[in-house]
This record gives sequence, C-alpha cells and structure tokens, in this order.
Amino acid sequence: MRRIRQPNHAFVYTLSAEHQPVATVACNETVCIETIDAFEGRLRSSADLYSQKCPGPPRANPQTGPIYVEGAEPGDTLVVTIENIEPTEAFAVTALIPEFGGLTGTSHTATLDDPLPEVTRLLPIENGTLRFDESRALPLAPFVGTLGTAPDLEAISSLTPGYWGGNMDCVETGIGSSVWLPVHNEGALFFIGDAHARQGDGEVTGVAAEMSARVTVSFALKKNYSIRWPRIETDKYLMAVGSARPLEDAARIAWKELIGWLVADHGFDALEAYQLLGLVGEMRLGNMVDPNYSMVAKLGKAWLPSESAAGNSQTPEQ
Amino acid sequence: MRRIRQPNHAFVYTLSAEHQPVATVACNETVCIETIDAFEGRLRSSADLYSQKCPGPPRANPQTGPIYVEGAEPGDTLVVTIENIEPTEAFAVTALIPEFGGLTGTSHTATLDDPLPEVTRLLPIENGTLRFDESRALPLAPFVGTLGTAPDLEAISSLTPGYWGGNMDCVETGIGSSVWLPVHNEGALFFIGDAHARQGDGEVTGVAAEMSARVTVSFALKKNYSIRWPRIETDKYLMAVGSARPLEDAARIAWKELIGWLVADHGFDALEAYQLLGLVGEMRLGNMVDPNYSMVAKLGKAWLPSESAAGNSQTPEQ
Amino acid sequence: MRRIRQPNHAFVYTLSAEHQPVATVACNETVCIETIDAFEGRLRSSADLYSQKCPGPPRANPQTGPIYVEGAEPGDTLVVTIENIEPTEAFAVTALIPEFGGLTGTSHTATLDDPLPEVTRLLPIENGTLRFDESRALPLAPFVGTLGTAPDLEAISSLTPGYWGGNMDCVETGIGSSVWLPVHNEGALFFIGDAHARQGDGEVTGVAAEMSARVTVSFALKKNYSIRWPRIETDKYLMAVGSARPLEDAARIAWKELIGWLVADHGFDALEAYQLLGLVGEMRLGNMVDPNYSMVAKLGKAWLPSESAAGNSQTPEQ
Amino acid sequence: MRRIRQPNHAFVYTLSAEHQPVATVACNETVCIETIDAFEGRLRSSADLYSQKCPGPPRANPQTGPIYVEGAEPGDTLVVTIENIEPTEAFAVTALIPEFGGLTGTSHTATLDDPLPEVTRLLPIENGTLRFDESRALPLAPFVGTLGTAPDLEAISSLTPGYWGGNMDCVETGIGSSVWLPVHNEGALFFIGDAHARQGDGEVTGVAAEMSARVTVSFALKKNYSIRWPRIETDKYLMAVGSARPLEDAARIAWKELIGWLVADHGFDALEAYQLLGLVGEMRLGNMVDPNYSMVAKLGKAWLPSESAAGNSQTPEQ
Repeated sequence: MRRIRQPNHAFVYTLSAEHQPVATVACNETVCIETIDAFEGRLRSSADLYSQKCPGPPRANPQTGPIYVEGAEPGDTLVVTIENIEPTEAFAVTALIPEFGGLTGTSHTATLDDPLPEVTRLLPIENGTLRFDESRALPLAPFVGTLGTAPDLEAISSLTPGYWGGNMDCVETGIGSSVWLPVHNEGALFFIGDAHARQGDGEVTGVAAEMSARVTVSFALKKNYSIRWPRIETDKYLMAVGSARPLEDAARIAWKELIGWLVADHGFDALEAYQLLGLVGEMRLGNMVDPNYSMVAKLGKAWLPSESAAGNSQTPEQ
Repeated sequence: MRRIRQPNHAFVYTLSAEHQPVATVACNETVCIETIDAFEGRLRSSADLYSQKCPGPPRANPQTGPIYVEGAEPGDTLVVTIENIEPTEAFAVTALIPEFGGLTGTSHTATLDDPLPEVTRLLPIENGTLRFDESRALPLAPFVGTLGTAPDLEAISSLTPGYWGGNMDCVETGIGSSVWLPVHNEGALFFIGDAHARQGDGEVTGVAAEMSARVTVSFALKKNYSIRWPRIETDKYLMAVGSARPLEDAARIAWKELIGWLVADHGFDALEAYQLLGLVGEMRLGNMVDPNYSMVAKLGKAWLPSESAAGNSQTPEQ
Repeated sequence: MRRIRQPNHAFVYTLSAEHQPVATVACNETVCIETIDAFEGRLRSSADLYSQKCPGPPRANPQTGPIYVEGAEPGDTLVVTIENIEPTEAFAVTALIPEFGGLTGTSHTATLDDPLPEVTRLLPIENGTLRFDESRALPLAPFVGTLGTAPDLEAISSLTPGYWGGNMDCVETGIGSSVWLPVHNEGALFFIGDAHARQGDGEVTGVAAEMSARVTVSFALKKNYSIRWPRIETDKYLMAVGSARPLEDAARIAWKELIGWLVADHGFDALEAYQLLGLVGEMRLGNMVDPNYSMVAKLGKAWLPSESAAGNSQTPEQ
Repeated sequence: MRRIRQPNHAFVYTLSAEHQPVATVACNETVCIETIDAFEGRLRSSADLYSQKCPGPPRANPQTGPIYVEGAEPGDTLVVTIENIEPTEAFAVTALIPEFGGLTGTSHTATLDDPLPEVTRLLPIENGTLRFDESRALPLAPFVGTLGTAPDLEAISSLTPGYWGGNMDCVETGIGSSVWLPVHNEGALFFIGDAHARQGDGEVTGVAAEMSARVTVSFALKKNYSIRWPRIETDKYLMAVGSARPLEDAARIAWKELIGWLVADHGFDALEAYQLLGLVGEMRLGNMVDPNYSMVAKLGKAWLPSESAAGNSQTPEQ
C-alpha cells in the first residue's frame, strides 16, 4: 500500500484548487496518509500554550493534500472510505484557547468579558486508552476531524466546514465510514488532517484530543452523481452533515440532504421521508465551535426499503 | 396505587400557578396519571386534519395537572421518576401541520412561501410496535413529551419548554428516568402530558407519534437544593436540558447546567468538567420545532468520581 | 383628563388576563397614566447596585394596568396613540447588570466567563437633556419601553416582548406614534410601563435611561380587524415589530407583518410589496437583550398609493 | 484622473491574493474604477430570468480588481474614500431569485417548501430617480455593495462579507464615506463591484437596484494600525460593520469593533463607551440575505471628546 506524506512538511491551511497536488491516486486505490495534529506538533507539554506556540487562524489546522483522484470530474461524487486510523505519537493533546470554544465569548460571539484561562493538557495514549487524569482512562475512539474536497472557486480555511466537507469535527468520520464528498474540480483534490483520538459531541471546548495519525483510506467515484452536502454511510446508517450558523440551519441542511438522498436513491417520496425521520431520524451535535457549526442527520438502514438497501448506495462505481 | 385523572376532562394549556391543583401527593408517593394526546383525541383518522379539528396555539397540548406535592417549597428540587408509560388507545397519530415543523416556513421563521400540504397519519400500535406503513413496524419507545412545574410568576403555554421543563420533547424522559425540576411555587405544581409512542431526534416534522397514555411516576424532593434548568438522571447518565433559540443557546445552557451539577455534587472544578465534556460529553437534538428548541447534554456516570457516583445524586431525600 | 395610577403601588410583572383591571376607559378616551421606572425606584444613586436592590426576573419591569378598554373584543385591534411622555423625577438611571446585556455572557448565551462589573449611573435631567458626564448632555428622546395587551391564555413576564407587544424597547413608541396591538381578551387589557428618557438602538447594555413618567395616551379600536404582531403608525411611516430569537426571525416576522398590512389595506400584491421593501424598506434594531429580540420594519408613507395614504389606515374607527 | 478597467472584462469572483493585480495606485491617489453590475449585464429585460441567464454561486458578483496599493503592508489599514458613483447604463435591475432572499427558504435555511416565483424587474434611471412602477420614482441613493481587501490566506466568494469587507451590502458605503479595511497582504489588494442605485435595509429580497457604475475613490493608508473588522467614517459618524450569522453575532462584532475604536483613538474606557452606546448608539440592518449577514454600529461624532474629534481619526496618514 502506498504511503502519502506532505512533501517537506509543507502542510496547507486552505482547501483550494490552487494548491499543487502532492499525490495522484487511482479511483479504486487504498493509500495510507500521514497527517499531523491540529497544532502542527507545537504543543508537546502542558507548558506549551497555544497563544505562544501557534500562529492562529487562518494558518491553523494543517492538512495533507491535495490528493488528485484520477477520473474525478465536477458533477461526480468522491467516496472516501476510512479503513484505519493509527496514532503516530504516544500522546494526544487538548487545550483551552482564548476566545475560542462553546462556553466563552469568541471572535464572533463577541463580548467584553475577560477570556477564560489558557490550558494545555497532554493526554498519554496507553493500552488503547487516553489518560485524562489519574482516575480516568478514556477509550480511544479515533476519527478524522477534517476531510474534504477543494470547493468550487474558493480557498477556504481548513478550520471551516461547509458543503465541501472540511473541518466538520464529527465523530462519524471514523474507521469503517464511507464519506461522500462533492467533486467541484478535476481530480476532486482531496484534503485530510486533524485526526482526533476521541471527542465529545460538539467539541465544546473547541479542541478535541488532537493527534498525529496515519490514516488509511480507499477512494471510489460515483460518476455523474451530484450531492450538495457531505454524506456518510456506515453499515448501519445513512447520514448527512450540514455546517452553518445558527445550528438550526446546520440541522435543516442535514435533514434536507438526507431526504434528498432517500428520494434519489431509495424510492421515497419527500414528505414520506420527512415523516419517517420525524419518528426514527437521529441527530447529533457535531461541532459548535468552528466557523460553521455541524449537525449530523441519520437514518438507520433498517428503515430503507430492502431492495434499495441491497442496491446501489452500497456499491459505488469504482 | 392511586390514579389521577383530570376532572371533567378539563385539561389545561398552560403551566401556571393560577390553576387549582387536581390532586395532592405525598413527596414519596407513586401515582398513575392519565394523560391525553397532544391533539386532545381529535385526530382519529387520516381524514381528520389539524386545521379543521384543532383550535391551535395556545390552546394546544393539553396537560394533566397541576399536582400539588406536599412539602415542596420554592428553592427545592422536585425529582419525578417515570416508572411506566402505557398507551391507552390502539394507535398513535402523527401529522404535518401548516407553518409548523423544522423544514418549512413557520410563524417565527416567517416566509412568503406556500405551506406544505397537511397530512394526518394514523400509526396503529401492534405487538409492541408502531405501524408506519406496510413494510415498517417501528419499535415503541415511549416517553413523556411535556412535564414540568409551574414557572415563577408566569403562565406559559404547554407548547413551550424552558427552565420549568414543559414541552421539551426529549426522548430521555422515558421509563426509568428521574427528571429534576425546579420548584418555584409551594407544592411544586407538577404538570404532565403529551406522551409519545416514539419520536425521532428533533421531532423534525413538529409532531411525534402522539398518544394518550397512563404514566406512572413517583415523586421525591431534594430540599433546599436549587437548579436553574431541568436535569435528568438514569442509571447510565447525568443530563441537563437547555431550551432556547437559537439552538446554540439551548446547547450552552445545557452544558453549563451540567457543569454546575458536576461542580456542586461531584467535586469537579468547572474548567476540568468543561475539558472532560469536550472529550466524552454527548449532545443530542431534543426538538427544533417548539417555541424554544431543546438540546440535551450528557455525561456518562462512568466518568464520575466513584465516591460521588455511589453517593447523594442517586438518592434524593424523600 | 383622567389620571390612572396603579392602586397601592401594586405594580404587576406579567401581561396577563388574570389581573384585575385598575381602570376602565372608553374606546375614544384620552388618559394620563402614571408609570414607574423599570427598577421600581430602587436605584437612586450610583451606590445602589441592581444585584443588591432589585429582586430580579421575573419580578422586574413593573407595569401599570391592566386598563380595560370598553368595547374591545378578541379579533379587534387596539390603537394606542402616545400623546405625551413627561418625566416625574429629576433623573433617569442606567446600569450594567451581571449576566445581562448584548456584549456579555447571559442566562441564555451561557458562558463560563466572569461577568462584567456592576455599575449604576445616575443621569440627571437638565433643561431637556440627560447628563451622561461632564462633557455630554444627551437630548431627551422619551419613549415607552413596554406596552401591550394581555396575551391569549398566557401570563408573560413584562420583560419579554412578543406578538402582544410587551417589552419591545423600540424608540418608535414615542410621542406621536399610534401603536396597534392585537386584542385577545375582552377589554383588551392594556399594560404600560418602562418609560425611557432615551435609548440607543438595541439597548445594547440591557438598560436604557430608565425613568418614571406620566404617559398620556388615547385609545381607539379597529373592530373586526386582526393583526398578528404589533404595528406602529406615525405621520411618516408604517411599521411592524417582530420579537424573536435569533434576530433574523424577528426581522422576518416584522417584514412579513408589514407586507400583510400593505396587502390588506393598501392594495399591494405580496411580491410587489416585497420588492418595494427591498428597495425602500428600513429596518432598525430595537433590542438585542430581552428574552426576545426586536426588529422594526418600516415603509415610508410616501410609497403608499395616494388613495390609500389618505384613507383608512390613518383613521381608525373610534 | 486615471481610469481603471478590468482587462478583457475578466472580472473576478473571489477576494483573494491569488489574482494578478490589474492596476497599481499610489497611496494618496484618486482613481475612477469601472464596475459591472452583480448580474454581469445579463439581465437586460424582464424576460431575462436569473436561473436561465446567470451561472449562479460562486461565479457571481463580478469584481474589478485587485488593485495594488503602493506601500500597503500587513498590519496597516487601507482607507478608501468614495468620491463619486455614476451609473453607466440607463437602468438598474432587481429580481427575485429562487431559494435566495430574506423571506423564503434558502440553501442554508433549508426547507421543503416550493420556491417563490422568479421575477426580473427593470428599473429605468430617469432624472435622478429610479422608476419602480408608474406611480413611484425612487430617489437614486447609490452606494457600493461590495468592496474589500484580499483576506488572509483564503479566497472568498465575492458574495460573502466578512472581516475583509466584501459583500456587506450596506448603504453606508456611499458617496463621501471613508471605508477602513484591514491589510492582510502586501499591496492591500483592493476589490470593488456590485454598485447599487439604491437598496432597502437588509436587501430583503436578496437583490438591490443593481447597476454598472463608474466609482471614483481615493486611497490612503494608516501605517502600523490594525483593525479586525471594517470601519466607516463620514462627517457625522464613526461606524463598524460586523458580518456573521446569526444577526446577533453580526451586531456583537460591530459594537465591539466600534468600542475598540473609541478606546484606541478617542480616549474612552471600554465600559464607558458601552454605556454611551447603550444611550446614543445606532444600529441598522445591512443585509440579511448574503452568506453572512451584516449589521452597522454607529456613534455620532457629536459624542466624541472634542479633542479627539478634531484629531487623528479624520486625517489618516497618506
């Protein structure tokens, strides 16, 4: 299996078609990608404070990429299956960063209040757990915080999630998930980074258990198949991710994309799908701290018509 | 066990201290309460449309109560444990109501768009399931949509959730849950109604599987113990419910109330609790359709210090 | 002209049909109403801090009323014209209140940040101005912060604005304005209070120049004429006030109510009115600190069809 | 005076440092810039519908630029004074565009409702007015809808306003205004377009009176003077523009930037400035339709300390 590394550690901080691809992959290829943590390795002890060590937005959340996917054209959908996520260091790190997070005044929810104190907390990785403190060893539950394709025309900070994916910070993009991303540029131009050893819903402090990781992914294409917002498929769920502010708009986007999927691929009438989701749909808070907030709408596959469930949504063209 | 029925079917439509109590209970009593569905039994076939059969806000969501709890005084917390929920009819009902719901223009997210078509859908209850259509039998997952105490001074529509509880529409208030509610009036003045046979997260159409039900609850009091927002305890979780708009404010309220709980009862420092929730906290969308939206913040009890977990939070004074 | 005073200084803190009327007026009567300031006269020097002197929500913002308007029935509209507002003390007062205001964490935009310092500032009224400090004498620009009718069924804190009017905190309800309010109860049940010597847009600190005042108002009725949200008419403008969170919903409500007015009374097609407002409509921030935020949508009367402008909207039936 | 035209009509659709400058200006130079309307001249009759004639986001809102300003470096502030705005065609145009605008479901406030009908309306420019219909000639009140500098690192759609300025759609950027913009790249890289013949507050339909125009601007620099968000100065006002969702965050940003200005340049204490704005501050809705919404906070210069008012804020270094 091929390894992909960012040449010269020259990570990128935007999702954009302006960057030169660092690798080209075949559309059915599986590769192992080296990613660096969101602080670019600068926080290595509790004495390393963000405001002193890190340059801050928008040069934050370093990404590996773009990776050019052969055959991908605007109007297609790229399906990225996350096969594995392995930490490459013996610790993850979390932090409180001034004017960032869900329970403090921020750059946008601007207040005159003093910021919270700054904290860096190392989280040793031990026997498949993350040591939070003496009495708590949290299970590793790794996922990829940021993955996406280059947006159409724009170059967007890797801190921001949107229709292109990006910094969704959703635990659903973990091992075994297939993430569907819209293709807006030739080659799709895939970016990935910001692995998390685990995270609470909403990433409420603004920072998960950030780690450097080797991420194994395989690529597939759905040709001439357009989506507006990212979708995720697991063996149990169909999901869609909306990213916007306020959170209700993120929720509306996610529900509507999921309904669109059910109508397009699974034979639902839109209002019937709406009513079914009203009874069995699930929605979890992805993040409430990034420039856009993310919500994940889910339908258990048990509720799909059986012929569809066995059908094309599970077998993207390769 | 005593049964409580609303006399003369004179259900109430506000949570308020102005109503005469319909029953008085001892603070350690268990009672069985008859509740009627949110449409007050008026939608009994798919031909019964809401706009023709129901009076609409604010005379909606009929409640049984108030129930006066002996010994409850302002500054206490009422703990209501839901022991059982039994449907009293052979069906539940769901609907699409004009200008109501998460994916349509509403009275407050006001648009010039035409409303969605009106729909009533009967959901027969069969063998512990809810029949959605020919091919889908949804498991019953009953919970109480609305329960709360009389607010301080105000009389609030039973459609609206807030610090008093009310129409939170959260699946967490199901069988086995203990719901903590602030006491703002002598006798607490407890209201309950709006049982749901099941509901998707967010109650996205605005309507769950509405049913009439017999709800068995037991009461307990935490004397001289104040809470700002409702809390829920199960064998696995400590939870808090925030209700506000936009959704991020509902989330902020819920997280902060949960942190306050951890600090007050479980020996946490506030910022330590914040960081722990950032890694293991959970947050689910309660409702995004009522006058206030609800979010539920959760911490698994596994993460509590062991001495606290075994301690006072599980055994309210009776 | 008759004077109306709250008997025994027993001001009320909710807008509700439960209160006993304190006076009955004819539907074309002009009366002079005594109102007390929002702090109920408790802050009389800079040493009087809110947290020490005032009971806090929901027993805040004392109102005079309800005033029963003869002939008013549900389905009518009450038109209250503000003829005069006279301060009754030699000062107004403003303050910073913990966890309240536009640029600080609050009860609903809940944060873990420390609150801002508490401040009380006396504002002497001198020669038609308000003394802010040695070098600044602000012109008096008095208006009524809170006025409304009893809502349907509910009893709502006088801190909260909504479809019933209430604590809109909009400078547009000043001398010469006619405020249209929906009638949901027999006698309309009018409440008034919270006079402001002046206020900046948004009442951003949460507190205006609060003063006790004598307010002269005249009443008129539009029989069998329903409105959903408050409207205001001056010699220059038609206006509607929306109160909700987030602010965009307050804006949407206000625009839609204004368009409804133009369609109902002034011969507009809805989409034509929408396009005209897109070019000449005005919108000012009313408040961004109360339990609901308020926005005011305006159309200059110059843009009305001339026959309508001369017609019925200026002469409510009396 | 020099004219600047976009070479080959190759307008740009992002604000970004990736574009090649189309002109270089001295930092005290006055130039006349040709801008094209937001529809790039494609809507020329009421039969020209947006969905048929225009490519849609993100290739919308064509800009002239970037213009390289000599001497501008990151950490400076660019002051652009708008000297004149002259229409270059005999008409402006407005429209209703599907899933865009303040009173309809949109891409982000996603609903299942049918979109509003599509409409294009030509607005002839006659004798200094804009003809809306037979009976209404609206005064011209031209301003620049979009102007900004290249953001730091990102390439942002010219439809989006933010800290870099961009598509603020605020009537305050009209003739006589000085717009302060942060410099994040060498040469500042200034973009301008989207002239409006006039607009209502909020641009509620999503479209103003769009026109092509010649805009005369002069440039100045404040060296080593950083701002976080755009500011505007006229002879009467100091203003700041916040752009975010929801609207209350746009408001918070604008108020805080204005307070920061008063503290930095005019000798205010932050809480004193906050209280003064609470009494005399003004806030108008800029737009509620673009990817971020804009609010404009204002303080009349009459309230500045006299020595400051006569001082450095009016005379940027050149």
